[in-house]
Amino acid sequence: MRILGIDPGSRITGFGIIERVGGRVAYVESGCIRAGTGEFSGRLKVIFDSVRDVVAIYRPEQVAVERVFMHKNPDSALKLGHARGAALCALMMEGLKVSEYTPAEIKQATVGKGNATKAQVQHMIQALLKLPGIPREDAADALAVALCHLHTGQTLGRINRSAALTGGRRR
Amino acid sequence: MRILGIDPGSRITGFGIIERVGGRVAYVESGCIRAGTGEFSGRLKVIFDSVRDVVAIYRPEQVAVERVFMHKNPDSALKLGHARGAALCALMMEGLKVSEYTPAEIKQATVGKGNATKAQVQHMIQALLKLPGIPREDAADALAVALCHLHTGQTLGRINRSAALTGGRRR
Repeated sequence: MRILGIDPGSRITGFGIIERVGGRVAYVESGCIRAGTGEFSGRLKVIFDSVRDVVAIYRPEQVAVERVFMHKNPDSALKLGHARGAALCALMMEGLKVSEYTPAEIKQATVGKGNATKAQVQHMIQALLKLPGIPREDAADALAVALCHLHTGQTLGRINRSAALTGGRRR
Repeated sequence: MRILGIDPGSRITGFGIIERVGGRVAYVESGCIRAGTGEFSGRLKVIFDSVRDVVAIYRPEQVAVERVFMHKNPDSALKLGHARGAALCALMMEGLKVSEYTPAEIKQATVGKGNATKAQVQHMIQALLKLPGIPREDAADALAVALCHLHTGQTLGRINRSAALTGGRRR
């Protein structure tokens, strides 16, 4: 199973792809889409087109994105909203269903505590995926949401299996 | 020349289509896209798909959207950003270049004063386009930005023509 994690931003959108091979997690690719400094609608087009390109190249089966709640600054919130809207539309265009996770869920799944720092997330991503160096912040965030999705899926799988066993015993 | 005006919103996105036939402006159609109350990404998909449908049905040659600056509430700004991002991506997908106008420019072009009320805009849209009734607020806003684009284009056309004449005289 191949999972794409996306961390949308109006300037830089991080992406990370991981794969579950048997019981192991393998790193596939990560990087960032730079929307440039041009006209705002042109930047959205870069995000939209590049996310579609990432999907076309790496063919993920599932996609995860960080859920965003409150933002202090209305202007940044408006810009981030546009970027997320463009990225989500690109993913839906490609027929992918997007799972969303809160920042606390993502930190819990990668570092083991919901209030971990950015640096701790980067460090754990390097260790968990056996990367040769510390990944960039946006790429690390994208890989972290992909890992969170993988772990959540595995946990749900275990719960379902154990529920089936319990059901079996009761019969 | 056929112009589409769009007024994006996370719940309701207004659209309005007008046409210049000779020296006159004709109303073609207006309406609103209701994104529903479901999951947020599903609502974005409704906006994205419906804007593409409007373009496919009415084949506008130019598109205008209201420019958004500041927003008081960060949460509403984030939602509006998503909706605008989805609408802009749909328009760009269809190969259309989007012109943006400030609320003051739109009010000036329709009512004649930059601080006109919503009701004044609705009233003037009805009068200018000879509609049988007062249009809904979102449809009126969409028609207003389309009209603003038409007027701006005509004004620029006049300026260019008079510049050409002045140039001619100087030679």
